[in-house]
Amino acid sequence: MTPTPARGFDVGEYKGRVARAQALMREQGLAALLLTTEPEIRYFTGFLTRFWESPTRPWFLVLPADGAPIAVIPAIGEALMRKTWITDIRTWPSPAPDDGVSLLADALRELGGNSGRIGVPSGPETMLRMPLASLEAVKARLAGLEFGGDADIMRRLRMIKSAAEIDKIREACRIGNAAFARVGEIASPGRPLEDVFRRFQMLCLEEGADHVSYLAGGAGLLGYDDVISPAGPTPLCAGDVLMLDTGLVWDGYFCDFDRNFAIGSSSAAVSRAHRQLVTATEAAFAALRPGMTAAELKAVMVNSIVSDGGTPSGGRFGHGLGMQLTEWPSLIEHDHTVIAENMVLTLEPCIELGGGSILVHEENVRVTAAGGERLTRFASPEIQVV
Amino acid sequence: MTPTPARGFDVGEYKGRVARAQALMREQGLAALLLTTEPEIRYFTGFLTRFWESPTRPWFLVLPADGAPIAVIPAIGEALMRKTWITDIRTWPSPAPDDGVSLLADALRELGGNSGRIGVPSGPETMLRMPLASLEAVKARLAGLEFGGDADIMRRLRMIKSAAEIDKIREACRIGNAAFARVGEIASPGRPLEDVFRRFQMLCLEEGADHVSYLAGGAGLLGYDDVISPAGPTPLCAGDVLMLDTGLVWDGYFCDFDRNFAIGSSSAAVSRAHRQLVTATEAAFAALRPGMTAAELKAVMVNSIVSDGGTPSGGRFGHGLGMQLTEWPSLIEHDHTVIAENMVLTLEPCIELGGGSILVHEENVRVTAAGGERLTRFASPEIQVV
Repeated sequence: MTPTPARGFDVGEYKGRVARAQALMREQGLAALLLTTEPEIRYFTGFLTRFWESPTRPWFLVLPADGAPIAVIPAIGEALMRKTWITDIRTWPSPAPDDGVSLLADALRELGGNSGRIGVPSGPETMLRMPLASLEAVKARLAGLEFGGDADIMRRLRMIKSAAEIDKIREACRIGNAAFARVGEIASPGRPLEDVFRRFQMLCLEEGADHVSYLAGGAGLLGYDDVISPAGPTPLCAGDVLMLDTGLVWDGYFCDFDRNFAIGSSSAAVSRAHRQLVTATEAAFAALRPGMTAAELKAVMVNSIVSDGGTPSGGRFGHGLGMQLTEWPSLIEHDHTVIAENMVLTLEPCIELGGGSILVHEENVRVTAAGGERLTRFASPEIQVV
Repeated sequence: MTPTPARGFDVGEYKGRVARAQALMREQGLAALLLTTEPEIRYFTGFLTRFWESPTRPWFLVLPADGAPIAVIPAIGEALMRKTWITDIRTWPSPAPDDGVSLLADALRELGGNSGRIGVPSGPETMLRMPLASLEAVKARLAGLEFGGDADIMRRLRMIKSAAEIDKIREACRIGNAAFARVGEIASPGRPLEDVFRRFQMLCLEEGADHVSYLAGGAGLLGYDDVISPAGPTPLCAGDVLMLDTGLVWDGYFCDFDRNFAIGSSSAAVSRAHRQLVTATEAAFAALRPGMTAAELKAVMVNSIVSDGGTPSGGRFGHGLGMQLTEWPSLIEHDHTVIAENMVLTLEPCIELGGGSILVHEENVRVTAAGGERLTRFASPEIQVV
């Protein structure tokens, strides 16, 4: 049994992230990065709180091409930010009419001078977590400075995980494994699906999750319609296949995997599809190597399903995983990202069962120099009956 | 005992929201609203899923000044969107290089013609949930159209809740009340705070929460440093005051309130501060009337604390509540929003205890024609000992 990893990171971890970002920034001629989202700010600071659930206040981290990061944040976050390694902390009593615009503009002017380039993450899977009007107000105060994208810097850094990050994801997966092993305690014919969802979250917490930020799933005789619907009051029936897909969090890092269960018994079609999915996942794991592309990894799963006589569904067959439930890259045809050591990926093949129904299976892996490490305890080909 | 309210809303609720928005849009000369966030899209469609936890895909709702809303969404959401009342659903297989840009631009051109004004929520407490570069790409395809803010339309609509929305918030509060009533089962000297947090989330789920999207708190002999820190491994000590502040969700609506507990016994200072906070909350509830301002409501609490000999802390003393943990307005000095019937508010006074420690208390209320309705079971002045 592996001991629970330590919470948090050594300061060296953050300094390394900053140094790698700054090397890329200088290469790209960026004077500063302006970061506004939870994972971006946490990545460099370690600022960990569920308070991001409140949309009221904007938070900023300004990372200069040289020197220390500057946190420009609401005063309500000062005590917690002071517990991180960040020392340049500038606060204002938010919410307020100006709400950080002047403080942020001052910091950017300080770093950008009269003509510097400011990088704001703007590409796929990013968003700006501040009012658009405030960004316009900041720009209006900074004549001469040029605002553009972040030259993909955040994506390039965050796709490769450190050993300490992987320890946290592994722990989240361990907790997920333990919760899935107990589904027999909570799923039985007659139990409403919404009640199963509630009880499954309780199992995740009992097994050690800090919180359960994501749970989706479905149930039906021949698979389910989609994998994003909330649970309703419909009771499970004997013969249903039940799928639970969880993104639980430990110390700020996610696992993201699912399990399918047969309630009492399984139809031949579902049992066959489950075997095809597990076989496809094992094929992808066996093929996994640094140097192949995300698209090639999807193709391994598609080919496995087809050669097994199944019908692969369209869409994404896995993705990156870490501080967020889903991260770059995407295992899709047109994502030619080169897989590299210490990426953490989900393998998530999906099969069509006819009548609009699908069956989805998902495991989590780390890319190693030689292949892959299983972070989840991979499912057996035979669907588990509960 | 009140029966559990029905899940979802009648179609009439959505049609009413659309009609009210469209009346304001015509008044403001807006051809369409472009909405990108979970609450904005759910407000008009009823599209309810935890899948927003995944940042990968952008989602769009375009609301024309006349006619039906258009959902421009990733194909993965089609099955669920088809279950709502929305009929004009345009999908693409996301993630993809274009990722909705052309579909969205086409929809906006259709509604905006050659010179229409497109409203994008841009003010306080809003954000744009799509890549900045994609917004620029959409604009570049739409020469002639003017992009600006939403003239505060979303804020004005969402601040006033319908009876059905209030039923859901009341249910979330009922569940919170039930969970807080059981804290004695999980909090005792020697129990690590992170374990208390975990067990409290389990209580919320057991009492009926769909999920627990927010939990913060703190513990200490004389209050706590802040109210946003995650729980650590430090065990509770006899004499500590423990605060738990939850935003649990039922059918997409939040409660947001806290409770303080004395572990074994309470210091005179904490007991006094607790009485002052409860008195201030009751004073605000007694003063609550449509027509007063948010700032005036805060002032009632500040004055109560001061006249009781306490030291009110700076900052916000409450806020709106609904589809999000915190919403407009803010109970702060410079928010002069006029309180109106069927706003749902938190009353959240905070006292300084010296040495940087604070004590916070929070209740949830609805504004009625004559005053207020208590949505939470208000705490007693004497801090509860567990």
